[in-house]
Amino acid sequence: MVSYGLRKPRKNLMRNLTYILTLIVLVGCSGEQSTGLDEDVLKEKKYNWRLVTSWPKNYPGLGMAPERIADLVEEMSNGQMTITVYGAEEQVPAFGVFDAVSSGSHQMGHSGGYFWKGKVPAAQFFTSVPFGLTADEINAWVYRGGGLELWREIYQPFNIYPIPAGNTGTQMFGWFNKEINSLADIKGLKMRIPGIGGEVLKEAGGIPVTLPGGELFTALQTGVIDATEWVGPYNDLTFGFHQAAKYYYYPGWHEPGPMLELLINLDAWNSLPKHLQVIIETASKAVNQDMLDEYLARNNQALTELVDVHGVELRRLPDDVIEEFRLISNKILDDLAKDDENIAKVYESYKNFKKDVSEYHKISEDAFVEARNK
Amino acid sequence: MVSYGLRKPRKNLMRNLTYILTLIVLVGCSGEQSTGLDEDVLKEKKYNWRLVTSWPKNYPGLGMAPERIADLVEEMSNGQMTITVYGAEEQVPAFGVFDAVSSGSHQMGHSGGYFWKGKVPAAQFFTSVPFGLTADEINAWVYRGGGLELWREIYQPFNIYPIPAGNTGTQMFGWFNKEINSLADIKGLKMRIPGIGGEVLKEAGGIPVTLPGGELFTALQTGVIDATEWVGPYNDLTFGFHQAAKYYYYPGWHEPGPMLELLINLDAWNSLPKHLQVIIETASKAVNQDMLDEYLARNNQALTELVDVHGVELRRLPDDVIEEFRLISNKILDDLAKDDENIAKVYESYKNFKKDVSEYHKISEDAFVEARNK
Repeated sequence: MVSYGLRKPRKNLMRNLTYILTLIVLVGCSGEQSTGLDEDVLKEKKYNWRLVTSWPKNYPGLGMAPERIADLVEEMSNGQMTITVYGAEEQVPAFGVFDAVSSGSHQMGHSGGYFWKGKVPAAQFFTSVPFGLTADEINAWVYRGGGLELWREIYQPFNIYPIPAGNTGTQMFGWFNKEINSLADIKGLKMRIPGIGGEVLKEAGGIPVTLPGGELFTALQTGVIDATEWVGPYNDLTFGFHQAAKYYYYPGWHEPGPMLELLINLDAWNSLPKHLQVIIETASKAVNQDMLDEYLARNNQALTELVDVHGVELRRLPDDVIEEFRLISNKILDDLAKDDENIAKVYESYKNFKKDVSEYHKISEDAFVEARNK
Repeated sequence: MVSYGLRKPRKNLMRNLTYILTLIVLVGCSGEQSTGLDEDVLKEKKYNWRLVTSWPKNYPGLGMAPERIADLVEEMSNGQMTITVYGAEEQVPAFGVFDAVSSGSHQMGHSGGYFWKGKVPAAQFFTSVPFGLTADEINAWVYRGGGLELWREIYQPFNIYPIPAGNTGTQMFGWFNKEINSLADIKGLKMRIPGIGGEVLKEAGGIPVTLPGGELFTALQTGVIDATEWVGPYNDLTFGFHQAAKYYYYPGWHEPGPMLELLINLDAWNSLPKHLQVIIETASKAVNQDMLDEYLARNNQALTELVDVHGVELRRLPDDVIEEFRLISNKILDDLAKDDENIAKVYESYKNFKKDVSEYHKISEDAFVEARNK
């Protein structure tokens, strides 16, 4: 029979009496903070942290990850730690998350590393780069292939401790009002596409445009832009892009498996007792998978609605366009590595892992999927 | 600046004094168990559980998952819960795990659902079926597509609460001493391949053989069998199969993304305070991803060693063989659903999800991988 009785209550009792006495001695019932708290006291100290994000509050998928991390942390710590999540612009701007966590004005943030490319160019590799790693592959590189150690080393000078925290899976190339039948159609194409993807488009003759999310719909509708990328069917359907664009292009070569990040102020992190650190890391890892599961489960339903109900035309990019984008992407990444020591180090690790893992996938999952789909 | 002071110590103190007094009243310092413990006491009660597995102690990949879950649970609960992991045969036989957990002789087990096909035929769908879901896809189905609810419903009569806990990724078809150049070569092929995969082989004219792991090497070497499946390069290299077989065939159509399971005795589960339940579920979800990351990061290194150092010949199954296996697999699954009410229900959900997710993958990750590999 199952036996999970209350073991050694006498010892428990003594430990807890010791704890109470320590508490009395150290904080003197005064309500004041005290330094030099011993380990037992630290273990039970309450933590109420604030987390800022780059997403609208409760945004489906992306914005739910920090909410879920906060819930898990509170539940697992039995209320010892609470995290209050703020949407973009509630306390800091969407792209002010990195600075807020770095300065310590907020203990935590949730965002995507490629937003900090002006400050930390190598951060882009920990989110997604064109023709890079898929969701499974970036997980394996980050957690088991040396990626996480590099990531932490590169964020350390900013006093930030990063933890992987979500993945959307392969994104769509996006919404178009012009057909792309060959490379010629890329010339002069005005598309909202940020980051390295935008640089690739520019090199291929297109015109990458930077616009905030809120202006995209009207810009598409009025012809200010010809195209925009966003996320994938689940988020795009809610946004209503199908009402402003004719074609939905794939594959999302520019963001094959973007990993999101939980940012933690390093001093705040170091002040936590070990069990709360493990709780935060484990909650984030669970949510890292959960987000991918959610997108995967919802994307096809949304895609079906877009195609069957709203009559969206689904199109694959022509081979010559893909080929050209791939060549340009590799050249841009090689050039970046020449200009930045951190990128050189990260790219070396990333490139080697990508070569290995894609070779292996060819004879395992890719070969299986091909066999299944025949 | 960061502020995470010791909040309301007076309240903490009172809560803890109350806890101490409750403890004194309820257990009377006698060392005896007591019923009717109130919620605060339950929250701090110690749990020392035992976990039996179907793997040799510390077996790379598979066998490390329960060890990692145990470590995470102990750390996150700050020592409130410990789990002692036993390898196969240490306390119960490898395939006695389900019964041990069902009876409550052990609170926990770690294994694979398809081992219980004699008892719970529908359990196979929660591990892997031929030409079924990949690792990402089964995660999405189980966690976000209704799979987990069905799984729990089906294990409930056995007094077991299942939690997903690991995935090896797509396995290899296995080790062969006979070349497979066409369907004709399958006739009379003696292969160690368990489960539905074995039934498919039989239907195609082969002879599935059941042998314990320990006898496989000699059986291959002496020609008692012509072939065997195992896991993938990482585990297979350690086993030394390359010293007993000539060819290494892919893809692993029979096990495209096997999900492993943490089994918990339902009474034991229900006796846990909420925060320990959330800790166990979250640790398992983190480990579910971790195992896949580990296999993905290690498999190509092992494969390279097998091919470059040990001269193993890597071979793809011919198209007509794959095609035949796929047709037979679908027929067998359809037939199983006709004979078993639970399978009918699970298969309906599984099949619909597979159709949707594989349609979606075609235009997202699969299309991307094809574009990247060109």
